[in-house]
Order: sequence, then structure tokens, then C-alpha cells
Amino acid sequence: MPVIDPAKVPVKTGSIYPEPYAGMMKGRSSLRHWHLNEDEFVMVTEGECTLVQDAGETVMRPGDCAAFPAGSTDGHHFINRSDRVARFLVVGTKAPREVATYSDVDLRVEIEGGKARFTYRDGQDWTGPR
Amino acid sequence: MPVIDPAKVPVKTGSIYPEPYAGMMKGRSSLRHWHLNEDEFVMVTEGECTLVQDAGETVMRPGDCAAFPAGSTDGHHFINRSDRVARFLVVGTKAPREVATYSDVDLRVEIEGGKARFTYRDGQDWTGPR
Repeated sequence: MPVIDPAKVPVKTGSIYPEPYAGMMKGRSSLRHWHLNEDEFVMVTEGECTLVQDAGETVMRPGDCAAFPAGSTDGHHFINRSDRVARFLVVGTKAPREVATYSDVDLRVEIEGGKARFTYRDGQDWTGPR
Repeated sequence: MPVIDPAKVPVKTGSIYPEPYAGMMKGRSSLRHWHLNEDEFVMVTEGECTLVQDAGETVMRPGDCAAFPAGSTDGHHFINRSDRVARFLVVGTKAPREVATYSDVDLRVEIEGGKARFTYRDGQDWTGPR
């Protein structure tokens, strides 16, 4: 049956970020970012998620949805500022080639053919925070 | 802001089914069907939704999810057998060309370039229930 049993699905944690960002984000949300080719959709399902964007913060609660169209350069991420568990569902499209740009650090990632290449915003290979 | 205001989003109701199916399904779920090219994902957000497939019925409640991979011929739809409101979120991929086949009636639909063509399962133009 196609009903998803949470006890049986593969659990993926962590991130593909290089250090120190992987450690900084451990067990948390993503670095603030925007996608070049992929639309993104979010629905909060439990607790309170605070959406952070250029213009500031918006608290989102269960049932609240947000959509981030591909190419919109206003980066987003979610922070749990509460002392309770917060959860959300994320849906993305699977672009054959994707570029994500991080809003608050000098970092971008190109993803193609299942391989990720991190660079600075100027396109040079990333070798450490600068 | 990308947070979706339910008061401002376009509301779409009804279906593209030909009669008598449009009337039969009014205010309800879809005819039981499967997709050739599009994956489909469902999360129940309120009440109880009964998933119907070849093998029988499964009651799904808020947080329960189901996935219907493209090309899987085991048709599905949801029925609200309760006396309460039930809601679910549906996510689909946007295949350039799609064929949906209906499990319990002699009907299929080909969708391409925004146009829908209903046929019998043998591919002949649909002109009425048979």
C-alpha cells in the first residue's frame, strides 16, 4: 500500500554543507538561501516556525503555507524560536541542474548529476569561510 | 511575502470531468484513477480520509501521508466516510504530457499543452458512459 509508514521510511539527517556550516546547522534548519531553478513549498505541521527573509520574520503555525518561486532572490529559512518541537513539510521540484545561493554567508552550491560543488558567490571553488 | 494568505488565493472548485461524472463528483474527491507520468503525494491535514485502492480501504488521519508513483496502475481516490470536514494536501508533478486512467469506469484522459482529451480505455473519443 502507498500509505507511508514513518517507522519504515529511511531517515535522513545532517546536510551536505561543508564545515563549519554543517556543524552550525546540526539538528536545525538550513542556511538562509534561494533556489535558481527549483520552486519550494512549505507547510507547517506542528509548533511554530519562524520564517526569516530580507524583510524580517514571520511566525508560521500549523496549516500555514509558504511558496518560494525559483529565481526569487529573497532568501529564506526557518528558525524554531520556541521551546517546543516544530515540524514542517517541504516540497521541491527536482531540477536537473540547480544553483542555491546562501544569503548571509559567501557560499553557493551547484548541483548536477547528483554531485554538489560549493563555490564562493564569484564562482571560485570554496575552500573555507571568508 | 511568500506566506500564502488563504483569503487571497484563487479558489478552484469543480472538475474537468465530462458529465455525468462532474455532477457525480461535485464537492467530493476524484474518480478513482492512476497517473502515467506524474507522481502524486498526499498528506491528510484534517479529519478522516478513506483511501480506496484495489486491495481495499485505509483510513488516514492528520499527518498520514501516501505516495502514488507514476505508472503504478493501482488506482486511488479518497472518500470522506465521516460526518466531519476532512481536508488533505495534494502535490503533483507537472508532466508536459499526462495520461490518467480511471479505475472504475471506462474513461481515460490525455492532457497535453493545457488541453484535455477524454477517451475510452481503447483510445476512442469518449462520447458518453458505456
